[in-house]
Amino acid sequence: MTPDWIAVDWIAVDWGTTRLRTWAMRGTQAVEARASDRGKGALSPAGFEPALLDLVSDWLPASGRIRVIACGMVGARGGWTEAAYRAIPCPPLDPLQAIHAPAIDPRLDVRILPGLSQNDPPDVMRGEETQIAGFLAENPDFDGTLCLPGTHCKWVRLARGRVVGFRTFLTGELFSLLAGQSVLRLTIGTAKPDATAFARAGALALADPHAANAQLFTLRAAALLQGLTPEQAAGRLSGLLIGAELAAARDLWQGNSTVIIGTAGLAQLYEDLLLAAGAKACQKDGAALVLAGLVAASLALPENT
Amino acid sequence: MTPDWIAVDWIAVDWGTTRLRTWAMRGTQAVEARASDRGKGALSPAGFEPALLDLVSDWLPASGRIRVIACGMVGARGGWTEAAYRAIPCPPLDPLQAIHAPAIDPRLDVRILPGLSQNDPPDVMRGEETQIAGFLAENPDFDGTLCLPGTHCKWVRLARGRVVGFRTFLTGELFSLLAGQSVLRLTIGTAKPDATAFARAGALALADPHAANAQLFTLRAAALLQGLTPEQAAGRLSGLLIGAELAAARDLWQGNSTVIIGTAGLAQLYEDLLLAAGAKACQKDGAALVLAGLVAASLALPENT
Repeated sequence: MTPDWIAVDWIAVDWGTTRLRTWAMRGTQAVEARASDRGKGALSPAGFEPALLDLVSDWLPASGRIRVIACGMVGARGGWTEAAYRAIPCPPLDPLQAIHAPAIDPRLDVRILPGLSQNDPPDVMRGEETQIAGFLAENPDFDGTLCLPGTHCKWVRLARGRVVGFRTFLTGELFSLLAGQSVLRLTIGTAKPDATAFARAGALALADPHAANAQLFTLRAAALLQGLTPEQAAGRLSGLLIGAELAAARDLWQGNSTVIIGTAGLAQLYEDLLLAAGAKACQKDGAALVLAGLVAASLALPENT
Repeated sequence: MTPDWIAVDWIAVDWGTTRLRTWAMRGTQAVEARASDRGKGALSPAGFEPALLDLVSDWLPASGRIRVIACGMVGARGGWTEAAYRAIPCPPLDPLQAIHAPAIDPRLDVRILPGLSQNDPPDVMRGEETQIAGFLAENPDFDGTLCLPGTHCKWVRLARGRVVGFRTFLTGELFSLLAGQSVLRLTIGTAKPDATAFARAGALALADPHAANAQLFTLRAAALLQGLTPEQAAGRLSGLLIGAELAAARDLWQGNSTVIIGTAGLAQLYEDLLLAAGAKACQKDGAALVLAGLVAASLALPENT
C-alpha cells in the first residue's frame, strides 16, 4: 500500500504487448512502481481499464480526477483506444496530441501518447518514442543515432531534437524462431551464446552481407560433422544475425555518435561488434528512460487540458 | 492389392522426415506406389520396420528375401540405422556403401543409401543425393548447377558426374516461421503471394544484399500505414527471401547452366527471378527423380551382395 501521507499527483504507464508497468508520481518523482503481465496482447479493448484499476486503484483520489499518461501498444489498433501515429520528422513526443481514452471510472483522466510513423520506407514505433524523449530530456543537444535492441530493434536518427528517420529489424524475433523452432533447434535449443563464436560470426556477417543467409545451415552441419557445441552454435547464430543487422544499418551508425539503449547483456553484444567495426558507440541503460519520457510529457502538458 | 500375377523384384523407398513413399519394382519399372505419413520425425528406431511392413507386406515373397533400397532421413542419426555421410567430391551415389538396416522379418534385405557431407563450409544432405543421381542417370554429361528448392533449398555444383560442392539455405523454413509466427503473421497469415510484389521484391533483394534484412518490418508497417494487402505482403516476403538466397548463391549460378528441380509453383518462382537476373536456367519436375536415383542404385548393386 502507498503510505497515505503521500498524495499521488499523476500516474505514469508503460503499456507494451506483454507487460503493464505503472508508477505513482509526485511531481517528477516516482514514489511507487507496480507491474503486471496484462499487456496489450492479453487484453480486449474493454479489458484495459480493469487491468489498470487492478494495479492502481489505491492511488486514485477520494474525489476529483487524476491524470494517467500512458505510452506503448495501449494506443495501437485493438488497444484501449487507437492513437494515430505522428509522422516524422518531428520531436519524439507532442503531449498535446495525446489521445483521451474512454474510462468508466470518473476519477480516471487517461491520455495515450501516439507512436511515430515514417512513410518511406514505411516504418512505425510505439513506446520507443517515449524512451527517445527521455533520452533527449537528459541530452537535449544530442545529434546522432540511437540503437534500441530487443525483440524488434529500432535504429533512430536524431537531429536538433527531432526524429529524422528510423529503421526496424526483427533480429531478436528471428533469433528466437531460428534457435527454438527451425531445424537449428536440434543444435541450439536454449543454449547461451558463446562469446568467442559470437564475435567471429558477427565480424564475418559485417564483412560479407551474404554470410548470415548462406551460413545458417552450417550451424546444424557443423554440429553433426565437427562437434560444434550448442553454446558455440548459439553464439554464431547471434553473431550472424546481429552482424547482418549492423551491416544493413551501416549508413545510420558510420560517422555518427551511436548510443545503444537496452538491457545490459544484449546492449553489450551490439556495442562489442560496433566498436570492433570502428564505430563511435556507447551504452546507456534503458530501464529509466521510459519513465523519464513520461515525466517530460507530464511537464509539457498544461494542468487544465 | 498388387495383382498376384505380378512378382515384385525389389522395393524402392524414399523415407524423409514427414513422408514414407514406397514403390513395388519389377526391373526398372514401378508397378505400384504407396505412401504414408510415418516419416522419420514420427518414428523411433524400432518403429521403422513396422511402418514399412504396414505399407508393403503383401509385396514380400512367400519365401526368400527381397531387396529394399531406401534413401533419406531413414539413415540419419535416430533413424532406422545411421548411414554415415560420404564426403564430397564424389558421385552422388555409391550403392556399395549402402548400410544394411537390422530387420526382424527374415524376408527383408534393407539397404540405406548414405547422404553426402561437405567439410568446408560444413554442410550435409540426405535424400537429395538420390535425386541428383536420378538427374545424372538421364543427363550423364551435365556440367553445371542444380537448385532443389523446398523447406531447405540445396544448391549443388556438378562436374564430370561428381558433386563438387553444395550449399543449403533455410529459405522455405524462414518463410513459414516469419509469415506464420513472427509479427508479420498479423499481416500475412496464410495469404498466397502476389506475383508482381514477388518479382519486385526479388529484384530488390538480388540487387541490394541488405534489403531482405532491412525490409522485413516494412511489410507490417506498410500494411498499417498504406493498405498493403496480405497477398502483396506474402509476395514481398517471398521475393525478399528468395532474392537474398539467389544473391548469396550467385557464384553457383552465374555463368553456369542451372536446372531447378522441384514442384512446379516453387520452382517457377526461382526460375522467374533467375531469368530476370540473366541466368541460364530451366526447370525439371522433381517428382520422378528420386525413383530414377533408386533405380540407378539398384542397377549398380550386384545381385548377390
